[in-house]
Amino acid sequence: MAIQIGILGLGTVGTGVVRILQQNAEDIQTRTHCDIHIKSILDKDLHKEREVKGDFFLTDQPDQILQDPEIDIIVEVMGGIEPARTFILEALRHGKHVVTANKDLIALHGHELLDAANLAGKDLYFEASVGGGIPIIAALKDSLAANRITDVLGIINGTTNYILTAMAEQGREYSEVLAEAQQLGYAEADPSADVDGLDAARKLAILSSIAFNSRVALKDVFVEGISKITREDLAFAAELGCTIKLLAIAKHQEEGIEVRVHPAILPLSHPLASVKGVYNAIYVVGDAVGETMFYGRGAGSLPTGSAIISDIMRIVRNIQSNSTSSINCTCYLDLPLKAVSDFYTAFYIRLLVKDEPRVLATLALLFAEANISFASIIQKPRGEHQAEIVLVTHPCREGALQEALDSVKAYSKVLNIHNVIRFENGQEENHDSR
Amino acid sequence: MAIQIGILGLGTVGTGVVRILQQNAEDIQTRTHCDIHIKSILDKDLHKEREVKGDFFLTDQPDQILQDPEIDIIVEVMGGIEPARTFILEALRHGKHVVTANKDLIALHGHELLDAANLAGKDLYFEASVGGGIPIIAALKDSLAANRITDVLGIINGTTNYILTAMAEQGREYSEVLAEAQQLGYAEADPSADVDGLDAARKLAILSSIAFNSRVALKDVFVEGISKITREDLAFAAELGCTIKLLAIAKHQEEGIEVRVHPAILPLSHPLASVKGVYNAIYVVGDAVGETMFYGRGAGSLPTGSAIISDIMRIVRNIQSNSTSSINCTCYLDLPLKAVSDFYTAFYIRLLVKDEPRVLATLALLFAEANISFASIIQKPRGEHQAEIVLVTHPCREGALQEALDSVKAYSKVLNIHNVIRFENGQEENHDSR
Repeated sequence: MAIQIGILGLGTVGTGVVRILQQNAEDIQTRTHCDIHIKSILDKDLHKEREVKGDFFLTDQPDQILQDPEIDIIVEVMGGIEPARTFILEALRHGKHVVTANKDLIALHGHELLDAANLAGKDLYFEASVGGGIPIIAALKDSLAANRITDVLGIINGTTNYILTAMAEQGREYSEVLAEAQQLGYAEADPSADVDGLDAARKLAILSSIAFNSRVALKDVFVEGISKITREDLAFAAELGCTIKLLAIAKHQEEGIEVRVHPAILPLSHPLASVKGVYNAIYVVGDAVGETMFYGRGAGSLPTGSAIISDIMRIVRNIQSNSTSSINCTCYLDLPLKAVSDFYTAFYIRLLVKDEPRVLATLALLFAEANISFASIIQKPRGEHQAEIVLVTHPCREGALQEALDSVKAYSKVLNIHNVIRFENGQEENHDSR
Repeated sequence: MAIQIGILGLGTVGTGVVRILQQNAEDIQTRTHCDIHIKSILDKDLHKEREVKGDFFLTDQPDQILQDPEIDIIVEVMGGIEPARTFILEALRHGKHVVTANKDLIALHGHELLDAANLAGKDLYFEASVGGGIPIIAALKDSLAANRITDVLGIINGTTNYILTAMAEQGREYSEVLAEAQQLGYAEADPSADVDGLDAARKLAILSSIAFNSRVALKDVFVEGISKITREDLAFAAELGCTIKLLAIAKHQEEGIEVRVHPAILPLSHPLASVKGVYNAIYVVGDAVGETMFYGRGAGSLPTGSAIISDIMRIVRNIQSNSTSSINCTCYLDLPLKAVSDFYTAFYIRLLVKDEPRVLATLALLFAEANISFASIIQKPRGEHQAEIVLVTHPCREGALQEALDSVKAYSKVLNIHNVIRFENGQEENHDSR
């Protein structure tokens, strides 16, 4: 049997796909009983020097691929919303299966695209859209399918994890590490999609939709970036036996689901705390399986290519067994979203105050009025007559915390609220050594 | 659609399977479009009080299940070699698909059973046989199928990891922690299968056969247990920035494959180093995906049940699409095994010597004669006129190390060779923070 592939885009990821299919051709053929052949590749600039060569046909005319009756599977690795969306819809209309690595597109238009795939009776797979080579979508859809998933916590943005890791390990400032990451190619010239949490939010919308079988849109995700995190925050976190990570958090609770991306203070004993640099990991709790974690490279030419080709191989097996289009959309529930004010976490609040008697007592009273008490307090002198205070609250409603912060802001002895960061303790009772 | 299940065995794992199928019945039905119904369960003692109830039929007559024409899938959770092997063969002959959690059986008779499944055109799945709820077999067979897997390093025995974690964190002795583990039910009354490494070796035979597409038998696995590890070794390892884990290691190199289970000194920066207590993790390196790791509970009623039910759900989908028996045996290669003497690792050697001039120089010469040099040396005084020395070698052939050790043993100033432990640095160049 032979399958013809058309690839849209020959950038980093497209090149990785070509390379792996060439390099591991023999194994892939033996494993699928199928010759997977790249017939044509769409690229804007046909005269550029290529990193890969082969007997494929390069074209800048999308229709030459999308309408080619010989092509069975389209691999979309152009990125961006348009024209990727239109191309995928057209590919499905022309009876082709689609594999995409496009998180932006799936997060925004996944519903439309999966509906189109169902209508066409074709497969639309997107393992590569989250966590690069980590098979997290297969795990949620298939391997953990016996479970009711309650928690998904992910480090799913390599840029921010690189920055926070370097800040934590080397005691450096955000701006300095960001500049270095840009130089090394780990951060874009305009880093906002990464550092503001939008990239992680897109991936979380995808993951949580699958984990909870209920559609989560990008706009449903509460998002806060890492640009306000300072080396002082990381030092205080370390003093508390913790570190700070940009976490993508999705929880399914009785009242509904909550989905949020923000910097979180995480105990060093949590499995996610040791995920460093550009590595990604997704920690998943299911009611049967308990805690699991999936770790690996969240980006890059070959890791992302690995996920794309495993999707291609799945489609090949589906074609062979006449079972395509069997598990495209899995959102059969419609769960309510929790309001942000109902999020329930512990908080870290770092303040600059006048170093005078009764300040701490007054602060404690202001929080007590909102029914919030402290789990621990760190105070350090700062210059003359000033003190820096870190308050760690017991878990409380986000709404109550905001009320308390309003009173604190109005209190004349408080010079500045430096930062407010949520805690994530995960399933802390499970993190002892048993 | 409805599928009838027969379960062989109602111990810990069987109970977990029943419980999950009952508790998550609705979700499982929606996800598979199928009513998965437990028809009958085999159990020796029909009068025992049960933790689970249901409309299933309890019997002590295996044929009532194995020959029941209404039953589609047999779940074997009895454990042990016989009669489990005979029951599975008979189930396949009677046209049933089989899911098993039986690592002993798959490690020893996997070939025979998979051949029988192929002959019968039925599925034989065994995700639960390694790593409890961690979907490692699906990852190796399916999600990482685009890769040539080069390394599999696993912490796949919870008992030994519990013991080594407690020894490392609490500075306690092996025998004391083992006794505690036995009391807590983490170790058997006869702990030898765990602490001598046999349980891990069985699982490694399964994992490496799948990872390398070449059959690895239990007898091919080099095995060394943890009973010689002392708290001194763990303290020295900590001094070297490392910890000690019982690792199941499989590598595919140019000369062939090597498969071994032994205590290994692992840098704290390695992702496996932070896997604690009874948790399991399997670290897999593929040529495309790079480093990945899969983490979770390696045993227990519900985690193991989670893996079994995901296998059942796969078979249900295969039945629905008429595609059963498509990826049973994947050993299409026949790779040579490396000889033990050709294993190539760094070594930790802890010696008691007379504290006299030239002893260290002589030791260095004895190793140099076998072409082995040192990466680091720690020396500590021990009582009067004695010293304890830890030699850390650069990587060398196991054969050369054994030669050197023979000379060292014959050297009169060496009072005792306390321990010799292999290092595992993994892909150490990748463990920096990028």
